[in-house]
Amino acid sequence: MTEGATPDLVVDLLGGDMRALARTITRIENRSGDYRDLVSALYPHTGSASVVGITGSPGAGKSTLVDELVSHYRENDETVGVIAVDPSSPYTGGAVLGDRIRMGSAVGDHGVFVRSMSARGHLGGLSTATVDAVKAFDAFGMDRVVIETVGAGQNEVDVVRTADTVVVLVQPGSGDDVQMLKAGILEIGDVFVVNKADLDGAERTAADLEEMLELRGSEERTRVGHHGAVEVDSVADDGETEDESDAWSPPVLQTVATTGDGIAGLATTLDGHRAHLERTGERESRARTRAAAEVRTLLRQDTADLVETELRRRGGIDEVAARVAERETDPYTVADELLGPLRDYLAEVND
Amino acid sequence: MTEGATPDLVVDLLGGDMRALARTITRIENRSGDYRDLVSALYPHTGSASVVGITGSPGAGKSTLVDELVSHYRENDETVGVIAVDPSSPYTGGAVLGDRIRMGSAVGDHGVFVRSMSARGHLGGLSTATVDAVKAFDAFGMDRVVIETVGAGQNEVDVVRTADTVVVLVQPGSGDDVQMLKAGILEIGDVFVVNKADLDGAERTAADLEEMLELRGSEERTRVGHHGAVEVDSVADDGETEDESDAWSPPVLQTVATTGDGIAGLATTLDGHRAHLERTGERESRARTRAAAEVRTLLRQDTADLVETELRRRGGIDEVAARVAERETDPYTVADELLGPLRDYLAEVND
Repeated sequence: MTEGATPDLVVDLLGGDMRALARTITRIENRSGDYRDLVSALYPHTGSASVVGITGSPGAGKSTLVDELVSHYRENDETVGVIAVDPSSPYTGGAVLGDRIRMGSAVGDHGVFVRSMSARGHLGGLSTATVDAVKAFDAFGMDRVVIETVGAGQNEVDVVRTADTVVVLVQPGSGDDVQMLKAGILEIGDVFVVNKADLDGAERTAADLEEMLELRGSEERTRVGHHGAVEVDSVADDGETEDESDAWSPPVLQTVATTGDGIAGLATTLDGHRAHLERTGERESRARTRAAAEVRTLLRQDTADLVETELRRRGGIDEVAARVAERETDPYTVADELLGPLRDYLAEVND
Repeated sequence: MTEGATPDLVVDLLGGDMRALARTITRIENRSGDYRDLVSALYPHTGSASVVGITGSPGAGKSTLVDELVSHYRENDETVGVIAVDPSSPYTGGAVLGDRIRMGSAVGDHGVFVRSMSARGHLGGLSTATVDAVKAFDAFGMDRVVIETVGAGQNEVDVVRTADTVVVLVQPGSGDDVQMLKAGILEIGDVFVVNKADLDGAERTAADLEEMLELRGSEERTRVGHHGAVEVDSVADDGETEDESDAWSPPVLQTVATTGDGIAGLATTLDGHRAHLERTGERESRARTRAAAEVRTLLRQDTADLVETELRRRGGIDEVAARVAERETDPYTVADELLGPLRDYLAEVND
């Protein structure tokens, strides 16, 4: 890493240099060089991009749908950054760009930038790297950022919920909905899309989803009635209250990404959700929640690094574990020996 | 907490006082008083109990099977501690004892002690509390400790793998096997039991399991062949090598817990596994692996506590998050401000 590289890179990126954007994201993905300073420097320039997260099981047609959505935005002269996150893929960087040759309209177009990120090398830190990459796109001036991820595991949920709006993609008759319900995906979706809506079973899948969302909605309303200040009866009498009218009911859309059917409608719905977030102040409160999560995650990762360093100074975890297994010491004593001085130091500093 | 309470409690517990055991486990579960000193003091007296973890989906008949296993051990004059872990249950302490009135032979029997632990109050720390409770039983002198847990989530896997031997319970024709395969339970099972073997489909379920285990076994052998020192061909020529003969192939047993059928066979298999662990030195290597995991978990929890304390000193996470959301600062700067002094201190101390 060269001294002074970061300020130059930041200036170039903010000035619209795409190679600077690419280099920045590479550093972010590899957690290399002074990436922390880089992200800190970009941070004040973020906050204007619309960030959409799109998830769904493999085969639901996410890539095609994202490609169509990108084309739609480009037709309206909006710039778009795409982050394709595959927690299980060993491929990074160029590979997905290769796959995306099919995204004909986007090749050679400087208003769109597609980048893949994989989980290799930063276990558990994937959501941090994704969040940082979003910041780079945002500071660069991309109007839209799309985070695309596969599956419904905890990693994917963590990644996708860093977006303002979460889209969940389902394919007809796949039984995906039940799996997603289990994984907690139903709870985080703002917009649901039954893609491949020309296939048999699309209507049925959409109806099933709507039913599940209806159930979820009424459970939430009941919870408010039980624990919150809102009295359910008076709301019902009134017919329309601010609380009722400003509640977001996740819609279930149908698309055929391969033909582009329904994509414009999806884009309109996404804008509607963004407007809803702004009107209700939820955009700000979500931003605060995300900031809190980000700070906690970083602190956890950083303290874990500190602990590893301390363990190495004591001969490494294997040495320590062998002593514990032979009952020369015990886990609590080890923890106290390691962290006691820190605790004392902090207590003193803050006295 | 009274001064001097811990030494007395330790002496009483080691002396065979069951009320001291109960009080100790209550402190461990509630993480209250000087539970850390308590566990540290008991630790040198641990290491002789046989610890079995039993998991399986709800309805597989775990409680009944555990009760029968306990009765079997008691008939052989062995003492048994049971920890029933329910990560989703709000009930603790007495509740399960109440449930277990059906365990007729054990009521009023001082050679058995059943205790439930729930996840309430120590999110993520359930495996730590369970491990500590096992130590209390072990130091008390229980010959056997059984950890019983529901389901196949990550929490349950973490809990059950703290045992020497892991038993996975399946019910016939439930499709459980496929779910467990996904959850990684297949990888951690040392013994598989198809309970309710008098039901239709038991043979089929057992055969399915055996097939999956066979597949897993051959994958492992292939891995050894590829990456390890063992040459697969010469092993096959030799007919029997130490590596082959000492490999543990997880057996699939069938039981009918309600009638006691197959319980004695299960107990024999568990002893066989224990003997295998000792013969191969795997008991020691597993103990070291567990010790390492325990130390890491404690360090992670303790540093997380330190971080929370520091955050509170800075006005709390909400205050910090609001400043980040308004771009007055950024997550990396916050993390550096909080942990920088610690890092400097550690570097200095160790210089």
